[in-house]
Amino acid sequence: MYPYRQLFDFTREIFLKMGCPPKDAKLAAEVLLEADLRGVDSHGVARLSGYVRLWEAGRINATPNITIVHETPSTATVDGDGGLGLVVAPRAMDIAIAKADKVGTGWVSVRNSNHFGIAGYHAMEALSKDMIGMAMTNASPLVAPTHSIQRMLGTNPIAVAIPANEQPPFVADFATTTAANGKLEILQRKEKKAPSGWVQTADGQGSTNPFEVQSGGALLPLGGTRERGSHKGYALGAIVDIFSAVLSGANYGPWVPPFVSFLSPPDNPVGEGIGHFFGAMRIDAFRPADEFKQHMDNWIETFRKARVKKGEKAVLIPGDPERIMTQIRLKKGIPLLPPVEKDLEELSKKFEVKL
Amino acid sequence: MYPYRQLFDFTREIFLKMGCPPKDAKLAAEVLLEADLRGVDSHGVARLSGYVRLWEAGRINATPNITIVHETPSTATVDGDGGLGLVVAPRAMDIAIAKADKVGTGWVSVRNSNHFGIAGYHAMEALSKDMIGMAMTNASPLVAPTHSIQRMLGTNPIAVAIPANEQPPFVADFATTTAANGKLEILQRKEKKAPSGWVQTADGQGSTNPFEVQSGGALLPLGGTRERGSHKGYALGAIVDIFSAVLSGANYGPWVPPFVSFLSPPDNPVGEGIGHFFGAMRIDAFRPADEFKQHMDNWIETFRKARVKKGEKAVLIPGDPERIMTQIRLKKGIPLLPPVEKDLEELSKKFEVKL
Repeated sequence: MYPYRQLFDFTREIFLKMGCPPKDAKLAAEVLLEADLRGVDSHGVARLSGYVRLWEAGRINATPNITIVHETPSTATVDGDGGLGLVVAPRAMDIAIAKADKVGTGWVSVRNSNHFGIAGYHAMEALSKDMIGMAMTNASPLVAPTHSIQRMLGTNPIAVAIPANEQPPFVADFATTTAANGKLEILQRKEKKAPSGWVQTADGQGSTNPFEVQSGGALLPLGGTRERGSHKGYALGAIVDIFSAVLSGANYGPWVPPFVSFLSPPDNPVGEGIGHFFGAMRIDAFRPADEFKQHMDNWIETFRKARVKKGEKAVLIPGDPERIMTQIRLKKGIPLLPPVEKDLEELSKKFEVKL
Repeated sequence: MYPYRQLFDFTREIFLKMGCPPKDAKLAAEVLLEADLRGVDSHGVARLSGYVRLWEAGRINATPNITIVHETPSTATVDGDGGLGLVVAPRAMDIAIAKADKVGTGWVSVRNSNHFGIAGYHAMEALSKDMIGMAMTNASPLVAPTHSIQRMLGTNPIAVAIPANEQPPFVADFATTTAANGKLEILQRKEKKAPSGWVQTADGQGSTNPFEVQSGGALLPLGGTRERGSHKGYALGAIVDIFSAVLSGANYGPWVPPFVSFLSPPDNPVGEGIGHFFGAMRIDAFRPADEFKQHMDNWIETFRKARVKKGEKAVLIPGDPERIMTQIRLKKGIPLLPPVEKDLEELSKKFEVKL
């Protein structure tokens, strides 16, 4: 178990060694570690060495000049200048919040960015302002559309954070696939089979092999099969791709550059970097915030009390598992798998930063 | 087969007999019939007698005073005054479009409304203005959240319409359940089994009986089971409910009044009527519209050309099946099932309107 503070300090030091300004290094560490706190282990410190390798390959700019390239009172298009998504995304979300402050809502599409950690972090930034926050991003292609055997979309997550009063906020944050790639990686490490509906083989047959994507297979859109609604998951992933990248001028669909340094980006890009999309809506642009938040309490309490199926404990509100995990991990520390520990030790040696 | 024009004229006449102003009767007929044209038979003229019965029960106001009760430059909250959703929704979408025209985007939450036909109609209103359109609505509870056996949410659809240049627009319009209730009704009429993942029994077991909801069972959120991501479908349905009703002051969750006149609305309402949510985003609030639409053409052409699985014809773009169906039905007419024909004949007699 690693105390949060220890991993945070280490991560910030590594970003400093990459040449990030101190404020950015701190912010990037905070965003990245939020994934570990919330139990999304695939998106946290496990990816630190990946960011470093992309920086070494010249594909991440540690000192980006993040600019608004186009705007209206309620919108902006942001160029991330190849910066860490962990830094570009909070900057873009700040712009969305500032616009919402002035005209009720703010919407920001971002190009020329990189992986931004967990979408939930960015959506939740709106909560303390009595706003609803939204965040989404495209990602390198792993997902085959319904009827297809070609990987065309990323796992393209959507996060929506909605404030309540006494109750903790509603925070949905999910990949638009049946299961996120991180969930598959866990099964790979444990050498367990995947449930049906998660992946297909290279020729489009349903499969339970968690290594299927490595053999030319694909992740499946939420729904899994056409009969079970995969065309809806495909549509959701497509909407995320279009809002994040076609609106902003980033790469979309099969052109989204891979997160790993050993795979080159496509040599015929249709845009710059990867794309994100953020939204902020002031509650009191629709209704007095207190009134709304009291009804959200009622909404949450009512759903929590819904009758449960035999064998299940409770109906959960989106965000419940991650909030509980955060409380546990802040107290007991963050567990790391041996390969992640090894990765961090190598970074520690290479950059002469104490782990 | 009924020619579109014949059903349109009949429907408009019935709305006129209900006391709708001529402009509203025409609009309501257009919105309702769009469902029949696009092949969403459950939401079209088959529902006309349902609207009439709700009006007879005093639960639809034929001459509503639709008002903006709160607004900012980019948002509005609209009170539908108990009007036909078929009339309230286009009015609200117009407001969203007018706001987008001025400040880049417009977002409208609606209370005190009624069923609004297909969400796709309203989202598509934005297309001719070079805007992205969005529409969603809550509906009476038929869906059990993950782990629950209680019907807490409607099928809560989401529609997103995105313009292209040479290519037809991208139009996603889907219930946030594995399958819409209308799909289940088709199986009921044909006495066929439902695929697994669509419904559960009253005690929460998976079922293939299409009549399960009538025996205390429930529709399942997109994903079907927890293992296959039903918590994501549940989150999506919840977001639609909150945006449509908690933001506007409509009824939410289990309080949403039923669409049928023989079931009374809950006697402890938490708001007024049902709720909708609309959005319009001007493309050129982010990027020159021509540039965007050319990239949308590229997006659509690229996805259409994605390699298909053996036995499948093509990868579809959201909106393809409905557009093709519209072309066929405008030419060949709209087929009606015998019970729907009987319904219309009864309306014809009762209101002395020629079918």
